[in-house]
Amino acid sequence: MNLPKKVTIYEVGPRDGLQNENRRVPTADKLRFIHALLASGIRNIEITSFVSPRWIPQLADHAEVARGVQRPPGVRMSALVPNRRGLDTALAAGMKEIAVFMSASEAHNKKNINKTIDETLAVFAEVMAPACAAGLAVRAYLSTAFGYRTPGDVAPAHVVELTGQLRELGAYQVAISDTIGFANPHQVDDVLGRVLARHPVESIAVHFHDTEGMALANCVAALQMGVTTIDAAAGGLGGCNYAAGAAGNLATEDVVNMLHRLGIETGIDLDRLIEASRLAASFVGHELSSKYLRAHDGRRARERRDAEPDD
Amino acid sequence: MNLPKKVTIYEVGPRDGLQNENRRVPTADKLRFIHALLASGIRNIEITSFVSPRWIPQLADHAEVARGVQRPPGVRMSALVPNRRGLDTALAAGMKEIAVFMSASEAHNKKNINKTIDETLAVFAEVMAPACAAGLAVRAYLSTAFGYRTPGDVAPAHVVELTGQLRELGAYQVAISDTIGFANPHQVDDVLGRVLARHPVESIAVHFHDTEGMALANCVAALQMGVTTIDAAAGGLGGCNYAAGAAGNLATEDVVNMLHRLGIETGIDLDRLIEASRLAASFVGHELSSKYLRAHDGRRARERRDAEPDD
Repeated sequence: MNLPKKVTIYEVGPRDGLQNENRRVPTADKLRFIHALLASGIRNIEITSFVSPRWIPQLADHAEVARGVQRPPGVRMSALVPNRRGLDTALAAGMKEIAVFMSASEAHNKKNINKTIDETLAVFAEVMAPACAAGLAVRAYLSTAFGYRTPGDVAPAHVVELTGQLRELGAYQVAISDTIGFANPHQVDDVLGRVLARHPVESIAVHFHDTEGMALANCVAALQMGVTTIDAAAGGLGGCNYAAGAAGNLATEDVVNMLHRLGIETGIDLDRLIEASRLAASFVGHELSSKYLRAHDGRRARERRDAEPDD
Repeated sequence: MNLPKKVTIYEVGPRDGLQNENRRVPTADKLRFIHALLASGIRNIEITSFVSPRWIPQLADHAEVARGVQRPPGVRMSALVPNRRGLDTALAAGMKEIAVFMSASEAHNKKNINKTIDETLAVFAEVMAPACAAGLAVRAYLSTAFGYRTPGDVAPAHVVELTGQLRELGAYQVAISDTIGFANPHQVDDVLGRVLARHPVESIAVHFHDTEGMALANCVAALQMGVTTIDAAAGGLGGCNYAAGAAGNLATEDVVNMLHRLGIETGIDLDRLIEASRLAASFVGHELSSKYLRAHDGRRARERRDAEPDD
């Protein structure tokens, strides 16, 4: 099995995770969470989104988060920016990296951001040119890259083409994203094979949702294709709001644990990462979906029980 | 990606699942569960264990289950048998297939069944020779094949050797089992590569636990090696007793869903399989660990909400 020696985790829990949680987390708690993640060795992190509070009230405190966060050297810290106005606010709040978000599915893009793909790319041009001119790094999410209503209803050639357009607009990396969470390893192999035939591997990340439990299997397929950047959210934050414990984002500790077991370096301390996830679980008020976290909690409970004297 | 066209699921929920649940399930409910599994298209199923009720009180009704169950044509139905006495009871209850269980780790075997591996093989000889003479099929579990205390602390050569001994004793298939649930895809590739270099692929099954969420990724590694029999337990029954929702066995619906998404036939109706898992969840009194099941429940809840009139 041909695997990379080192993988970069891009942590998206504070943004992609928290924006999909029902409960609003106070700014001070968000900062504690981000700092706990950094303390675990996370060096790439998306901290918030400069969208209108009307769209995502959970992240209305974006400027406070960006201003309040400590920025250790060597950390890439980004925020989602939907338009020019968001860029200006992000710049004023001191952001050095931003992310843009669009769908490879015309139908999903229209539903999600109420624009056609062409209209979205036009807005991106208005955001990314001044961002790059101001010296910001720009990352892009290409969502529903493995399908929207059914797996494979987005043509892989379209994913390759849009990846190219995003890179031409200035994105240093495009996260090929399975928003719905139904991609399978064979499809990952197929889509990434085509993407990587046209784009260098450093310019590509993968962003899987673990809705049906296939995210780790998809990561292995991506690793075998040479991909070395994986997006994940601590604890699997941002799961389905209507089923306790249902999975949304791939849990950072699940993928970090697998990478370590595969002998792949991440620079992340798994025990400290779990502390960050436990903190997040206490904020959002429900159990998180990470299997590694649950197994770890189960071991702790068992050890406590075994340590009790027998009657 | 080179994958088989068809895969056989060996359902172990009624035995491996229920024996690890705290709550004792009434015999009539076990029979409803088994019949629901058969109705979904499951054609290979382990229904109980003929062990002493002192060891596993949850399965004390083994004879009643074996006598009460319907046996449609074309169904392989097995029960675990630990010794000669268990074999006699299983034969009297009309079983046509049995399974034997041992560890590849000397330390785990000693802890789990209080015998050395050599002593265990001697007992197997006393069980398997008369079983085969009586026309029974015999399946074997080789547990902790990927390690016991740490991943890889069981030598792959030892797994290959024990697989050979179990086949010589008459096992038609050996389930290479990750009892602890920490095997990784690279290790699966390595261990199965050595096993399959000496044993035909039809004689090998894989049995993964999803403790840390890697079971599906491990299945993909096994499929790529040509393995076509996968053990699983509906709903992921038999999870950790000390953490609600923690994973034990790989959930049947999780692997069946992935196989179908990969274009691999199983002969199983996923919707009916989920009905069986919901039934099991109601018996054991807690949520099950299957991610597919939770995603499905989440979708249903969302559809119900969307169907409600807006105020």
